[in-house]
Amino acid sequence: MRASAERALEATRPLAAAPRAVKDAALRAMADSLERHCAEILDANATDVSDQTAAGMSDAMVDRLRLTSGRVSAMADGLRALAVLGDPVGEVVRGSTLANGLEMRQLRVPLGVVAMIYEGRPNVTADAAGICLKSGNAVLLRGSSSALHSNTAIVAALREAVEATGLPADAIQLVVGGRDDVADLLQARGLVDVVIPRGGAALIERVVTESTVPVIETGIGNCHVYVDADADLDMAERIVVNAKTHRPSLCNAAESLLVHAQVAEEFVPRIVKALAAEGVTVHGDEGVRRVSPDVIPATEEDFGAEYLSLDLSAAVVGSLDDAVAHIRRYGTGHTEAIVTRSHEAARRFAAEVDAAAVIVNASTRFTDGGEFGFGAEIGISTQKLHARGPMGLQEMTSTKYVVTGDGQIRS
Amino acid sequence: MRASAERALEATRPLAAAPRAVKDAALRAMADSLERHCAEILDANATDVSDQTAAGMSDAMVDRLRLTSGRVSAMADGLRALAVLGDPVGEVVRGSTLANGLEMRQLRVPLGVVAMIYEGRPNVTADAAGICLKSGNAVLLRGSSSALHSNTAIVAALREAVEATGLPADAIQLVVGGRDDVADLLQARGLVDVVIPRGGAALIERVVTESTVPVIETGIGNCHVYVDADADLDMAERIVVNAKTHRPSLCNAAESLLVHAQVAEEFVPRIVKALAAEGVTVHGDEGVRRVSPDVIPATEEDFGAEYLSLDLSAAVVGSLDDAVAHIRRYGTGHTEAIVTRSHEAARRFAAEVDAAAVIVNASTRFTDGGEFGFGAEIGISTQKLHARGPMGLQEMTSTKYVVTGDGQIRS
Repeated sequence: MRASAERALEATRPLAAAPRAVKDAALRAMADSLERHCAEILDANATDVSDQTAAGMSDAMVDRLRLTSGRVSAMADGLRALAVLGDPVGEVVRGSTLANGLEMRQLRVPLGVVAMIYEGRPNVTADAAGICLKSGNAVLLRGSSSALHSNTAIVAALREAVEATGLPADAIQLVVGGRDDVADLLQARGLVDVVIPRGGAALIERVVTESTVPVIETGIGNCHVYVDADADLDMAERIVVNAKTHRPSLCNAAESLLVHAQVAEEFVPRIVKALAAEGVTVHGDEGVRRVSPDVIPATEEDFGAEYLSLDLSAAVVGSLDDAVAHIRRYGTGHTEAIVTRSHEAARRFAAEVDAAAVIVNASTRFTDGGEFGFGAEIGISTQKLHARGPMGLQEMTSTKYVVTGDGQIRS
Repeated sequence: MRASAERALEATRPLAAAPRAVKDAALRAMADSLERHCAEILDANATDVSDQTAAGMSDAMVDRLRLTSGRVSAMADGLRALAVLGDPVGEVVRGSTLANGLEMRQLRVPLGVVAMIYEGRPNVTADAAGICLKSGNAVLLRGSSSALHSNTAIVAALREAVEATGLPADAIQLVVGGRDDVADLLQARGLVDVVIPRGGAALIERVVTESTVPVIETGIGNCHVYVDADADLDMAERIVVNAKTHRPSLCNAAESLLVHAQVAEEFVPRIVKALAAEGVTVHGDEGVRRVSPDVIPATEEDFGAEYLSLDLSAAVVGSLDDAVAHIRRYGTGHTEAIVTRSHEAARRFAAEVDAAAVIVNASTRFTDGGEFGFGAEIGISTQKLHARGPMGLQEMTSTKYVVTGDGQIRS
């Protein structure tokens, strides 16, 4: 692990200095290489799929693991899309000429060595490699052992292309090994500049607890939709159904519904029916069950759960204040939505709810780098330091002040 | 400690919602209160000074600890200066209207609860309290035990003023207690949003190693001045003397001098003499001692040292590449300066040196929030995540996305 990190550090210098044209050529070569090596990647993936099926992995998980030539092409297209985006490195964030004539500029520079520890699908491997390369960072990829053969084949294809472009292949490395290697990675302060865990709560907890390297936490989303007394209930129904059912396994899916008491009698039975039609199981509090007695009762755990499935907790609240208090208690600071026609309620909710994204009259599913127009996303940060919300290319940079003068000294 | 952190968290809500006018009124009231309670503060400080003198603290350290009515007024003026600065909270960092009509804005919001652990002079207490209040954060102040009486009196004066303005007094709290309380603070994830250590290397190392709360590292500065072959040697002399002697105890003072071999014979004896006249001891490598044999020899430790005193390590380097390699090996990523008339050398040095600030033809002492025009500074970050370089009000904020629509769902 340490040797990999040292090679990555060595790779940061030519990478940081690489002009946009070279990085974009590498990204296009990486895309072509994935498609050229598609057969090998699919073979490797077939091994992972049969190993995991034999080991008893659920069908839904196996489906996420499985690659097809269409999915490989989608990875390649993702890399080509990155080549079209502007280069964050060198961007001037602020600048001024000081009273003494010093010219001060704050420029974006790469972070350096980024370690990704992830449990996701194999496409995360190509996405993360591409985003790190475009932002001038070397990346250590620590994927799930269940996807080891797939990731090995993908990384081999990517490295071949990077090297052919004249950039160091060690800009992209797969870190293979046991639990101890992850521990080493988390202690590699001075070699690794940031660790980004992407996966379940247990992974993130381990990384945050053990790491002396700075961490960007991502992705636990217990997202709420609050339907206000003044909501357009047709709109509320569309939003709740979309937020819950569009992609229930993603972190920006809604996990909990809060309904103002004034509209509970009308809205709760209606939304329970609409959700049931989509296969959603509602877990309701007493207020919900008073108007929809067939709903199964919610426990304390339900309100704290990130289901990532077709389940939804639901509660009736007496006021906007109660909704905000509920979110403060159970929310994970990811995405919180309100449906309302009241300007004041929208304004208060946006100001008082403390989350990476607050959404008024739209689905929680819009908290996404692609939807926000960033063109790419390496994860969604739920911490407050450095980056909060979808992380695109800019979030993968640090800054450097460059100050030029003609002999100024302090007096 | 935990109770203090919970009260701080409670205070974050009214603080985050406080409009600029209220925060500025509080800052002015805090300034007035410091001056009104000046006699009590000086009495408390006299106790610290006599305790520490009896305990054998060095004269230089006692001088840093000592307050005078002038120093108390300077603290008050610092708070008044903050009241004049713009409010970072609510600033729109970016925004756009998406193709589907969603209006997306990224706004600055307070971080929440900030813990400062510091060894500095008592004026840090007032500065940190002011910067945190202006940026809408509650602050837990963990000062040095040697300044306990002074800090207690300062915080009491500040809290009285905050409360009188209608903001919660618990926005500013002094954390008193043993080493265990610091350990609790470092484990208070979920209550404390960021820990900022400000002090020596041992303190910073402890905080980084033990903390599960995100940390912003500050201030270890082994800053170099590189005098290039093409340097204006008069300018180089002025810059080196200023960078070393203007305030040698601060982190942006120069600790090491690198001289290109082509100008060593002319420049080294000259700068050694100029520095000696200012009381500076030079610790030189063989190249330095070849042309200035009276210079005492430098050890490996000298090149790694942040002296914070009138000592300077010095080496002769064969090229700009060697200078960059030396800085890469010994530098702490704070501030690195080059003196040169060569456009190419300046450009290469700025690009290849990885530090919070790179300075061309000026003193290292300019890496400072005040000098950069930030109006205030809570420390100088030497890490790459979140903030790098002088941290002003903006660096004490996070962001939040607010997205408003009229019923948009994802398809």
